[in-house]
Amino acid sequence: MKLYERLAADIDDAIQKGLFKSGEKVPSIRAASKSYNLSISTVLHAYLLLESRGVIESRPQSGYFVRARVRSRTQSKPAVNRASVSTEVDVSRIVLGTLRSIQADEMIPFGSPYPDQRLFPSRRLHQYAHAIARKGEGWSVLTDLPPGNPELIRQIARRYAENGTLVHPDEVIVTVGATEAINLCLQAVAKPGDTVAVESPTFYAMLHAIERMGMRALQIPTDPAEGIQLGALEKALQHQKVAACMVMTNFQNPLGFVMPEAKKKALVRLLEKYEVPVIENDVYSEFFFGKVTPKPLKAFDRKGLVLHCSSFSKSLTSAYRVGWTMPGRYRDPVEKLKFLNTLGTSSIHQLAIAEYLKYEGYDRHLRKVRQTFSQNAKLMSACIKRFFPAGTKISQPAGGYVLWIELPTQVDAMQLYERALEKGITLGPGRMFSAQNDYPNFIRLNYSYLWDRTSEAGIKELSYLINAGIGR
Amino acid sequence: MKLYERLAADIDDAIQKGLFKSGEKVPSIRAASKSYNLSISTVLHAYLLLESRGVIESRPQSGYFVRARVRSRTQSKPAVNRASVSTEVDVSRIVLGTLRSIQADEMIPFGSPYPDQRLFPSRRLHQYAHAIARKGEGWSVLTDLPPGNPELIRQIARRYAENGTLVHPDEVIVTVGATEAINLCLQAVAKPGDTVAVESPTFYAMLHAIERMGMRALQIPTDPAEGIQLGALEKALQHQKVAACMVMTNFQNPLGFVMPEAKKKALVRLLEKYEVPVIENDVYSEFFFGKVTPKPLKAFDRKGLVLHCSSFSKSLTSAYRVGWTMPGRYRDPVEKLKFLNTLGTSSIHQLAIAEYLKYEGYDRHLRKVRQTFSQNAKLMSACIKRFFPAGTKISQPAGGYVLWIELPTQVDAMQLYERALEKGITLGPGRMFSAQNDYPNFIRLNYSYLWDRTSEAGIKELSYLINAGIGR
Repeated sequence: MKLYERLAADIDDAIQKGLFKSGEKVPSIRAASKSYNLSISTVLHAYLLLESRGVIESRPQSGYFVRARVRSRTQSKPAVNRASVSTEVDVSRIVLGTLRSIQADEMIPFGSPYPDQRLFPSRRLHQYAHAIARKGEGWSVLTDLPPGNPELIRQIARRYAENGTLVHPDEVIVTVGATEAINLCLQAVAKPGDTVAVESPTFYAMLHAIERMGMRALQIPTDPAEGIQLGALEKALQHQKVAACMVMTNFQNPLGFVMPEAKKKALVRLLEKYEVPVIENDVYSEFFFGKVTPKPLKAFDRKGLVLHCSSFSKSLTSAYRVGWTMPGRYRDPVEKLKFLNTLGTSSIHQLAIAEYLKYEGYDRHLRKVRQTFSQNAKLMSACIKRFFPAGTKISQPAGGYVLWIELPTQVDAMQLYERALEKGITLGPGRMFSAQNDYPNFIRLNYSYLWDRTSEAGIKELSYLINAGIGR
Repeated sequence: MKLYERLAADIDDAIQKGLFKSGEKVPSIRAASKSYNLSISTVLHAYLLLESRGVIESRPQSGYFVRARVRSRTQSKPAVNRASVSTEVDVSRIVLGTLRSIQADEMIPFGSPYPDQRLFPSRRLHQYAHAIARKGEGWSVLTDLPPGNPELIRQIARRYAENGTLVHPDEVIVTVGATEAINLCLQAVAKPGDTVAVESPTFYAMLHAIERMGMRALQIPTDPAEGIQLGALEKALQHQKVAACMVMTNFQNPLGFVMPEAKKKALVRLLEKYEVPVIENDVYSEFFFGKVTPKPLKAFDRKGLVLHCSSFSKSLTSAYRVGWTMPGRYRDPVEKLKFLNTLGTSSIHQLAIAEYLKYEGYDRHLRKVRQTFSQNAKLMSACIKRFFPAGTKISQPAGGYVLWIELPTQVDAMQLYERALEKGITLGPGRMFSAQNDYPNFIRLNYSYLWDRTSEAGIKELSYLINAGIGR
């Protein structure tokens, strides 16, 4: 193949891949000559060849453009990742598949891990971000390096104080969401091959972090109303080396319970006794149905063994990717890991949230959200009771925005997940919440979205699928 | 201590910590009663006590406020982290210290790893971000999950095509800067305890990633004009198990060389022969002083062993934290790791950069930046030649924005770094660029900032410090 033919083939290929779309300009002859290190005449030759084939056309005084009749390959939509049914479940693959399927607008988002974003003050947050960016603030990653923007950190610490937990602002480190916070904390306290105690069922973000770090998850029986069983946990601590424990004590995902305060205290004391650090994921605590924000484990921490993680992704916006951690005695190593992992968190976003917390009705906003969640929990529960087969058991969350549903034992939740996807409904199959393929007949459903006829139709459709006999 | 006294002490403590500043409102009696689970009268008692001590004051119809005369502890400025001189150098600690010291406006930023941000089109980028956010786009992290926003990915792939390297857009994964990209790629190809071949000197971000993952860095001699020595590398590959290689071939930091194309090709072939993946950090390639953007190693990759990493942090803005990777045959594991590490990268920022690349004069902007860098390289070199002692050797960068300077052997660059900090000048001591405390008499200086009398005074001040006898 001659040089000009090869260049023509390469450019044709780039157009087929969609790099240059119909009507867009391709590099000028001079630019292509420089970039590809070919003579002007070789490039000209290639372009004439492409023109003769109808791929590009020249426009006087302007250059060469992709011709309209050449169709670039349509941008492929993110594939709905069908998880195959197998005993070896790759949790993160199912989760990513579920998250991607939620992107499509026409999907019923029962599988979403996020609250309905229409509930959140995006417009207001953006007004702050806009004012900040326009003033030229927040444009250097160096301005708010780890631990993060001081005013945001003060507002975070202050929020804890308002909720009855005194923390020191010097302990707070801003992260890219709770996801990064959990990863950094786990890396600070354990190493590959170590064993980490988790709840069962447990929120898959915990399993992700363990999977990613090459550690082993040890599932501890968990009471659906009160959380991880202390007796079972102590037995595990006595019999093997456990490097860390990971829990959610407030509106645990997927169970929805809140651990009673006395038990929280007892849990911290137990872990102190064995000198085992505990990573606490507390992203849901503001979504209580009761009277006050429940206290985190952190409130009972005396020895700095609680690594507390949280985020604004569930309560303000997932788009800004702003979370935080208070890692107790592991503060310095976690701060260093944050720096090594992503350097900094967007300053503009940090500043915008700090301003919002300073001046806005965060509490008013949260009151509205709590009311919606608490109402929707009842509506969805009632609907499930009406349509799902006998033998179905539904959790009674004390807060948060998910239901954990046990279907009759013969139902295969992975099959249900796949069939539901075909019908335009997403859900969280039980296996996402276990490191050992437990919960084959469980599903998690999100009730944060506006409850309407479509939601009801979605529940009805699920019940048809279940009754049509998805068996194991 | 009685309940009300304890609450009073806690609130006093929160005020001392700066959570509630002078003139700010403390929680209402009713709110505090709920949050701290104390009776209204206990809270009232505590507040009256604090009022009697002059800590807070009540305002009719409004509640209790922190009194102006109570000084909250002043927000501590980020400490300029003085690295102590020792043989065991903790690279990331020196780097974080250097980065923090640059935050102060009055500092002369010779130590900065970033270009002068005044050169970048922040205002224009923000116009796009503003339009996007106002339209309600980009507000869900689910919209542009890994691999990232399709239009941004297309623009990235297109840019490579314009520069003479054809890549497939399906290979691109958007990350939180090149920092995250490098971490994910390294984790995909090697495990803790593995050996990773690096240049010497090498850019510290590479050492950070290795340090963080608990791997071992193997330094390979590197030619200051042509890059890593292939003979030495092959000898290493023959004699030990090397899990991966990490290099910068375009305007390497700190040396500034560009590896000739023939050698790039030979390097890729050598690594293919031993089946060793290579992580390429290519963040500086747009800052050439020559005629064209030099080709990345990726251009010579036939077997998918090149994991190419880059970012907009050096060429558009560091504030958005948008980078990318093309990890060859490791694409799927890297995409999964990205998902596990930080879930997604801010959609608003992804969309804003995609728009900028689509409509704006990125090339015009880069031409201006290149001109500034190339001019400043000459100005700084000339100034150093004039003032620094005999025996000083200065690199001749082919692009980028740093000089690598060898001082007379008796000079201790760590001491110089510390003394310079006291004088308000930052610099990069040589040891940051080695896993083995090499380069004790080397420094890296950034010349991207506006060159003026202050810069010249900074160089002069450094020369005084050197001449005053910083010895080892």
